[in-house]
Amino acid sequence: MKRSVQDTPIVFIGAGNLATNLAKALYQNGFRIVQVYSRTKEAACALAQAVEAGYTTELSEVSKDARLYIVSLKDDAFVTLLPEIVAGKEDALLVHTAGSIPMNVWEGKTSRYGVFYPMQTFSKQREVDFRVVPFFIESNSSEDTELLKAIASVLSEKVYEATSEQRRSLHLAAVFTCNFTNHMYALASELLKKYDLPFNAMLPLIDETARKVHELEPKQAQTGPAVRYDENVINKHLEMLAGEPEMQELYRLVSESIHRLHNK
Amino acid sequence: MKRSVQDTPIVFIGAGNLATNLAKALYQNGFRIVQVYSRTKEAACALAQAVEAGYTTELSEVSKDARLYIVSLKDDAFVTLLPEIVAGKEDALLVHTAGSIPMNVWEGKTSRYGVFYPMQTFSKQREVDFRVVPFFIESNSSEDTELLKAIASVLSEKVYEATSEQRRSLHLAAVFTCNFTNHMYALASELLKKYDLPFNAMLPLIDETARKVHELEPKQAQTGPAVRYDENVINKHLEMLAGEPEMQELYRLVSESIHRLHNK
Repeated sequence: MKRSVQDTPIVFIGAGNLATNLAKALYQNGFRIVQVYSRTKEAACALAQAVEAGYTTELSEVSKDARLYIVSLKDDAFVTLLPEIVAGKEDALLVHTAGSIPMNVWEGKTSRYGVFYPMQTFSKQREVDFRVVPFFIESNSSEDTELLKAIASVLSEKVYEATSEQRRSLHLAAVFTCNFTNHMYALASELLKKYDLPFNAMLPLIDETARKVHELEPKQAQTGPAVRYDENVINKHLEMLAGEPEMQELYRLVSESIHRLHNK
Repeated sequence: MKRSVQDTPIVFIGAGNLATNLAKALYQNGFRIVQVYSRTKEAACALAQAVEAGYTTELSEVSKDARLYIVSLKDDAFVTLLPEIVAGKEDALLVHTAGSIPMNVWEGKTSRYGVFYPMQTFSKQREVDFRVVPFFIESNSSEDTELLKAIASVLSEKVYEATSEQRRSLHLAAVFTCNFTNHMYALASELLKKYDLPFNAMLPLIDETARKVHELEPKQAQTGPAVRYDENVINKHLEMLAGEPEMQELYRLVSESIHRLHNK
């Protein structure tokens, strides 16, 4: 019988937003998740139930028999727990899922290792469509690189190899593109609450702003008072933000940055 | 014969991004655009051709016979040119399209006036789907309010009355939601160019970030190093931005702002 990549038994170390979304997607695509570890019982148990796996809150009780360990922890926890994570798993492939951590963090700690980075924003409350999520893969052997690419390709049409250097650059850009963008939405939402206006009035604008950069470069797509340097409007807005010095400072800085980018 | 709102002959004063998109949408929906004014011949002529109208670059030569004048100029130009704009159009309805200018700018200058504000980001290179664009309408008479709402309703399913106060609040929120968001895309694009990585790798992330806030509040939807206050990652990113002091300052300020919002 021909073996498929789905036969690879997987353990998840971590049960946060990324781990939850990734484990569910793998499970739904026929992979066998054997166990979930999380420091908190609630998180471990919730994810384990969703993917028909066992769970533990003790690293020492993590199964040694899996063939792939997907480690998805907060960056500093990962580095601290690394010795315990690798213990007793000499034959298995161990990967982490962090954009910001280089692959060589594994070097000298275990023999088969790599990175399995799906570049997306994950929340437990929302299921992500993995088919369009770009995966960036890295490993210390070409065989394991192929195995990781094969696994990612079951989920997504966008699977790439990337060096640690490339991945950390992508991750930094992703913070601007996603987290900072979402914070602009959040600040608008705070303002609108103050004015007793509904945030959902902004949704057509949010959607069009995102759609536009599929066709135009972001610089070309820019509109509004800062890019045409309409000081009348900018000054009125700064006045309106007088009671919110932090938002006012941010408004000023981003407007200057827009103006500068368009005059260079 | 019953008259329809489409029989209202319209003159556009201004041929910028908003005017171009709005005039084309009205034209495509059966309205008659009789003339386009712009200071620059190229812009006036291009839009006039697209909507089968005449054009002029002289305000004194703007037709006096239209029933609706839609004024869409940069805010400071509008205020300067106001006396010339209203001259000889005593019976017509005059509206502007600016989020930031109160309706009373018309007061004492002409008798029938109002505001016709489509809240969207418009570029000449891209055609906008007006059906989902929210229109915010205001006028000094209930009859003209109804006329403007009827015209907007031909284009869009989302037509609302709004006071000048509400409109300026929406406009400020829109600057954060759209212009500042687009600038986050632009900064990411600059970074990726430096690293020789393609911007379109970001598109799935951009789309999901926008989609998410249809379901979750922006604050709930937030992910990334700033919201979980992962100082390791934040400090690495600040280091990576050492050569870009402006972007570094922005990174720091937005991260602090995210952290503060989530701890209040």
